[in-house]
Amino acid sequence: MDTSAGPDGSRTSLFTDHYELTMFQAALHSGAAHRRSVFQAFARGLPAGRRYGIVAGTGRLLEGIADFRFDQDDLDFLAGTGVVNEDTLEHLSAFRFSGDIWGYPEGEAYFPHSPVLIVESTFAEACVLETYVLSVLNHDSAIASAASRMTSAAGGRPCIEMGSRRTHEEAAAAAARAAVIAGFSGTSNLAAGRRYGLRTVGTAAHSFTLVHDSERDAFAAQLASLGTGTTLLVDTYDVEAAVRTAVDLAGDKLGAIRLDSGDLVAQAHWVRELLDSLGNVHTRIVVTSDLDEFSVAALRAAPADSYGIGTSLVTGSGAPTAGMVYKLVSRAGDSGGLVAVAKTSKDKINVGGRKFAVRRLDDRGTATHEVLGVGHPPTDDKNGRPLLQQFMKDGELLPGWTGPDAVGRARERHTASMAELPRVVDRLQPGEPAIPTIYE
Amino acid sequence: MDTSAGPDGSRTSLFTDHYELTMFQAALHSGAAHRRSVFQAFARGLPAGRRYGIVAGTGRLLEGIADFRFDQDDLDFLAGTGVVNEDTLEHLSAFRFSGDIWGYPEGEAYFPHSPVLIVESTFAEACVLETYVLSVLNHDSAIASAASRMTSAAGGRPCIEMGSRRTHEEAAAAAARAAVIAGFSGTSNLAAGRRYGLRTVGTAAHSFTLVHDSERDAFAAQLASLGTGTTLLVDTYDVEAAVRTAVDLAGDKLGAIRLDSGDLVAQAHWVRELLDSLGNVHTRIVVTSDLDEFSVAALRAAPADSYGIGTSLVTGSGAPTAGMVYKLVSRAGDSGGLVAVAKTSKDKINVGGRKFAVRRLDDRGTATHEVLGVGHPPTDDKNGRPLLQQFMKDGELLPGWTGPDAVGRARERHTASMAELPRVVDRLQPGEPAIPTIYE
Repeated sequence: MDTSAGPDGSRTSLFTDHYELTMFQAALHSGAAHRRSVFQAFARGLPAGRRYGIVAGTGRLLEGIADFRFDQDDLDFLAGTGVVNEDTLEHLSAFRFSGDIWGYPEGEAYFPHSPVLIVESTFAEACVLETYVLSVLNHDSAIASAASRMTSAAGGRPCIEMGSRRTHEEAAAAAARAAVIAGFSGTSNLAAGRRYGLRTVGTAAHSFTLVHDSERDAFAAQLASLGTGTTLLVDTYDVEAAVRTAVDLAGDKLGAIRLDSGDLVAQAHWVRELLDSLGNVHTRIVVTSDLDEFSVAALRAAPADSYGIGTSLVTGSGAPTAGMVYKLVSRAGDSGGLVAVAKTSKDKINVGGRKFAVRRLDDRGTATHEVLGVGHPPTDDKNGRPLLQQFMKDGELLPGWTGPDAVGRARERHTASMAELPRVVDRLQPGEPAIPTIYE
Repeated sequence: MDTSAGPDGSRTSLFTDHYELTMFQAALHSGAAHRRSVFQAFARGLPAGRRYGIVAGTGRLLEGIADFRFDQDDLDFLAGTGVVNEDTLEHLSAFRFSGDIWGYPEGEAYFPHSPVLIVESTFAEACVLETYVLSVLNHDSAIASAASRMTSAAGGRPCIEMGSRRTHEEAAAAAARAAVIAGFSGTSNLAAGRRYGLRTVGTAAHSFTLVHDSERDAFAAQLASLGTGTTLLVDTYDVEAAVRTAVDLAGDKLGAIRLDSGDLVAQAHWVRELLDSLGNVHTRIVVTSDLDEFSVAALRAAPADSYGIGTSLVTGSGAPTAGMVYKLVSRAGDSGGLVAVAKTSKDKINVGGRKFAVRRLDDRGTATHEVLGVGHPPTDDKNGRPLLQQFMKDGELLPGWTGPDAVGRARERHTASMAELPRVVDRLQPGEPAIPTIYE
């Protein structure tokens, strides 16, 4: 059983592919382990039809990198299974990341080839982080990218993340964090509430009604215990009868009712009328039940006050991974200076060299291009907004990018980044990226 | 920071939706918290077009349930945020699951409405596990179900799980476990290797070649450090040149070469001929690069010796969640006896009552139906194979269902369960479930 828990309550150093450590060993043998190297995480493209992506996970990742150590149990496992040799184990036992990291801050939009994370260190140090870097960025950015389309479709109405049950239990907590960065108002997930300071919400499920002898008994118990401001779930038996029972018991101070099945658009209309006719003009209508960005958009004209979104959010609404890769783009040559490197590939674009990125804006402040400079910042973009921030220096975390406070700042950044993009980002239909990526 | 780590290196008690705890509180208020209750986890249907699903996650889940506690930090969080009241906190502080659990063992096939897990306890105890039960079963079963189609398509050739980088870091370890249950031969994931005793594999990536001054330098370092039995990645620059360099350096004892881009079918053929012509008849060909069950099937006629499968595996190959639900199906009535309960729904089939399940077999031992009895085991199935096993009794784990050894047994069970199903399960094309589910 593991005893050393990381910031997410989980350990990080073995969240690593076997081959990262065999490369570590072979590079120690050749001496390349010590070569200064620059790795870059980026997506070759967006998921099919998507207009933009949203970066998330960096805060979690940086905390994990700062804690990335191989403890005695890890080393015993690696020794016992013969993954690496004695010399390598000795190096791993002293491992701590001592390099520099830059990247797009969480909440920022990204496009094909955007250098979302840049890691500069020795080859061995930067290489061994590969699997972990990609796990965190690919998962959290996939969720944030889907979440952003949902909050965009909701047009200001609150969206609540409630998909924990449809994804891995730890992924659920990370998904809640990513959703809030992309504009969700809260989550059902208590672990996420505790770790990241997120607002958690929830009242009752159908089982609560069913365990009581009658719906009236269940509602009365809920109201007495949780207060009249609670949300009553009204579709266990008959929605109209349930709404009347709810109002009968709670009066006009009833907080909300929740609809979780059937034709939500039609129901929201007649339930709103029914509530109003009973004097409950302030009782809100919460809708849930397999919502995604498309059904949220379809509900825009209906009198729904908030949306609970689960499965489609935590599975990235058709794009469960962001598809980012982590590639060596530069490394020290014989002279000591950095040399651009890239795989030769017929089917993929690979551009070697350290990237710099700005978002080019027109005179009204609307983004027009993602501009990448290779080896130096783009030079002709006086209106360009530089996108890379430094997160770590000599292995030390720089302030502002981690911890619960970083989530709120990332959420504001998401709002600002979205506002700057052309309005094509609000279209849910498949299409090209909202702005083209160009190499200067 | 969390300090108490569960069997997966992570904590479990707050992997719970807010509303499970508010229901706990309101049910304490009404007294329903103490009512004997039966909850059932099942899928209303399989993902679109799938012929069968494979159960996975139960072993991880049972360990988590046995450890499911609210420690002082959890209680402080719940108190500080006002999720529940003082009385409820007191009950939570003493919480430990004391009920019984039955279900389909890991590796077993399941179909629509199969009672994959049955939890019998007080309402409060069984209800509060809902989110965690579903997170584990929905994730791990989705991965195992996809993995099973891949091993089936591979027709006996080894499949290696290597998708860690495309999913959440903890989900990655669980995915590796689920993949091995469904027939994968090993994983790249070291955390999974350590936790579950899985075989881990891997050698080197393109970055290893690129950090050296030449491919020859890189290959020489890898061979010297990892031995001639290693796998050399040959598509960084030019495949033919790389294969010749590899054989030149390693001789005929070279373990394998790996192809990670381009037309894998065509390459496998000419690279096999090239290796043979150089005398390397025992050097294997490993293929990777966005494989899924369909491309694995397409490679069947090509001389590929093993498959590395990543993204499509860890994202469930189009079905990233199994879509299972956890429903109250029976609870104590006034007389103390259990009463079947179910939500009334126009759009979903809900059958109340405790389920029993057998797989009906024909005279040749081939499965023909999933037969469910409500309230009692199906009676007319002398050829039927009972599917439910007891995993926990009075809150105690029964032996054989948890720990690393359970993975190997589940893997054998998967093989046996697949062999018993009609061969329509080998078809990758969309279709109906391989056998119908009937209620007796």
